[in-house]
Amino acid sequence: MSALYDRVALIGLGLIAGSMALAMRRGGLAGEIVGTARSAETRGVAVEIGLCDRVVETAAEAVMDADLVVLAVPVGAMTAVAEEIGPKLKPGATVTDVGSVKRHVIGAVAPFVPDGVHFIPGHPLAGTEHSGPRSGFAELFENRWCLLIPDADTDPGALQRLRALWEAMGANVETMDADHHDLVLAVTSHAPHLIAYTMVGVADDMRRVTDQEVIKYSAAGFRDFTRIAASDPTMWRDVFLTNKDATLEILGRFTEELFALQRAIRTGDGAHLFEYFTHTRDIRRGIIEAGQDTDAPNFGRGAVKE
Amino acid sequence: MSALYDRVALIGLGLIAGSMALAMRRGGLAGEIVGTARSAETRGVAVEIGLCDRVVETAAEAVMDADLVVLAVPVGAMTAVAEEIGPKLKPGATVTDVGSVKRHVIGAVAPFVPDGVHFIPGHPLAGTEHSGPRSGFAELFENRWCLLIPDADTDPGALQRLRALWEAMGANVETMDADHHDLVLAVTSHAPHLIAYTMVGVADDMRRVTDQEVIKYSAAGFRDFTRIAASDPTMWRDVFLTNKDATLEILGRFTEELFALQRAIRTGDGAHLFEYFTHTRDIRRGIIEAGQDTDAPNFGRGAVKE
Repeated sequence: MSALYDRVALIGLGLIAGSMALAMRRGGLAGEIVGTARSAETRGVAVEIGLCDRVVETAAEAVMDADLVVLAVPVGAMTAVAEEIGPKLKPGATVTDVGSVKRHVIGAVAPFVPDGVHFIPGHPLAGTEHSGPRSGFAELFENRWCLLIPDADTDPGALQRLRALWEAMGANVETMDADHHDLVLAVTSHAPHLIAYTMVGVADDMRRVTDQEVIKYSAAGFRDFTRIAASDPTMWRDVFLTNKDATLEILGRFTEELFALQRAIRTGDGAHLFEYFTHTRDIRRGIIEAGQDTDAPNFGRGAVKE
Repeated sequence: MSALYDRVALIGLGLIAGSMALAMRRGGLAGEIVGTARSAETRGVAVEIGLCDRVVETAAEAVMDADLVVLAVPVGAMTAVAEEIGPKLKPGATVTDVGSVKRHVIGAVAPFVPDGVHFIPGHPLAGTEHSGPRSGFAELFENRWCLLIPDADTDPGALQRLRALWEAMGANVETMDADHHDLVLAVTSHAPHLIAYTMVGVADDMRRVTDQEVIKYSAAGFRDFTRIAASDPTMWRDVFLTNKDATLEILGRFTEELFALQRAIRTGDGAHLFEYFTHTRDIRRGIIEAGQDTDAPNFGRGAVKE
C-alpha cells in the first residue's frame, strides 16, 4: 500500500502510539514517522528500539509539516499539548487522538486547533495491561474496533483518509457521537476497570488472609481482575476524572444491582441467583460469536510453569 | 506410576470429575474408574466419549467396592448424595469432594460417613468457564493448587494417598482449616465471581446502550468479566448460598472501598486514585512471579478472527 500520510507525528510513545508506529511501518502507511514523548527516558528507549524514523524533544517540533498528528498522551495532558502545538500545525493537516474519553478531549483540544486544520477525535478499543514504549506490537489493532467522532463540520475527505489508516492497521472503524461514546465506554471499560481495581485493593487489605494466600490461590477467579487492575495508573486516573458523570452513573447502577444480589444471598433466594447467572451466560456467547473473544477455556492461557 | 487406588468412583461427571478421569487415566493412577451422574444425558455423553471405564445409573451403585469416592456435584446436592451412598461405602475407603465451599460440605457429608471410612474434604482451585462432561481435559490441574481439609482425627495414611493422587494429576497440595478456606476463597473467588456477574447484568440492562454495542466494544475490559460470568449457574448459586457469611463480609468491604473511590472521582481527588492504582499493580506482579498467571499481554489470547 502506498503511504496515506507523508508525515505522521506521534505525541506520546506508549502502548498505543508504539503499536501504531509498528503497524504503519509494516503497511508502509506513512512516509515518515516522527515521535516525541515528555520523558527523556521514553524518548531514549524509542531511539534505541528504532520505533520511529525520528524522535524529537518537543511536541511543537514534532508536528512541523506533519499531515497527521496523533495525540497519544493521557487524557489529562491533552490541553497542554494542544496549546503547545496549535500555532505550529500545518494548514490542511489532520489532528486526531486516541484517548479513552471523548467529550473532555474535544473540550480540551478543539479550542487550540486553527481554522484549516481538521480535528477528528478517535479511540481504538485495544490495549493490554502493559504500558510504555516497549509494549507496542503491530498486531494490536487487528479485528479491534476504532471509534471516530466526527461532527457536522468534519471534512469528508479527511475522515475517509483517517478511516483508511485505521483499517489498514487492521481495525474495524465506526463513527459515533462523543456523549454516546463516553456512556458506552463507561459500561464496557471504565466501570469494569474501577471495579477490578477495587476488588484487588480489597484483597490486598484483608488482614485475615495473607498476601501470599491471595497470590497463591488467585487462579480461582481473582487473577483475571488483577490483569485489568495492572493497567496504567496515570491513564486511568485521568479517565475517571474526565468521564466522571457516565462512570458514576454506571457505578450507581452496579451498586444497586449488587445490593439486590447480596440480599438474595442473605435471604437464601436461590431462584433469583440462578436466573441471574443463567442470563449473563448469553452475553458471553454473543461476544464470542461476534469474534471479540476466544472460546478457548481460560482465554487459551497456556499452562503456566513455575 | 502404579495405581494409587484400585477403584475410583466419580459422583457427578462435569468439568472437574471429567478432568480427573482423564488425568488419572493418563497417569495410570486408578485401577478402574466408575462414574455416575444424575442426568441420563450426561451419563450418555460419558459413555459416548469413553470418559470412565464404567458408567452406572446411581451413586449407590457407583461406590460399591470403591477405594476412593469423589463427590463432584454442586455443593447444594452433597447431602442427598452422602445420604444415598453412606450405607454402601466400603470399610477403609476414602471419601473426598471437590466443592468450592468446605464448612458447609463437612456439615452436609460427615454425618453420613460411617466409622472406618475416611472423609477428607478437598478443593482443586482449577476450572474454566465451560462445564459439562465434554469440558474436561487432563491438564486442568497442572501447577494449580489443591487444598485438602483434614482434621485432628484424619488418618495420616489416607491423607498421604489422596495427596499423592492430586500431585500425580499435576497439582500442588496444601492443607488448610475449613473456615480459613472459606474466607480465602471468598476473597479470591466467590466475591470476584459475584461482582463479575453483577457487572455483566448491569451492562445487559443499560437501555441507553444496546446489547450489540456492549458486545462489539467488549474488548475494552468488559469481556474479561463475561468469561467469569459464564461459569456454571447451579454451582455458583450453591456457592453463594453455602458460603454466605464470608461472601457477604467481603462484599461489604468491597462496597465500602468502592464508595471511597467513587467519592474520589466525584471530588476530583486524582492523587488518591493514582496511589490506589499504582498499588494494585504490585499484586499482579506477585501472581506472575508465583507462576499463577502468564505475563503475556491479554493472557496471551490469540488474535480473534471474525
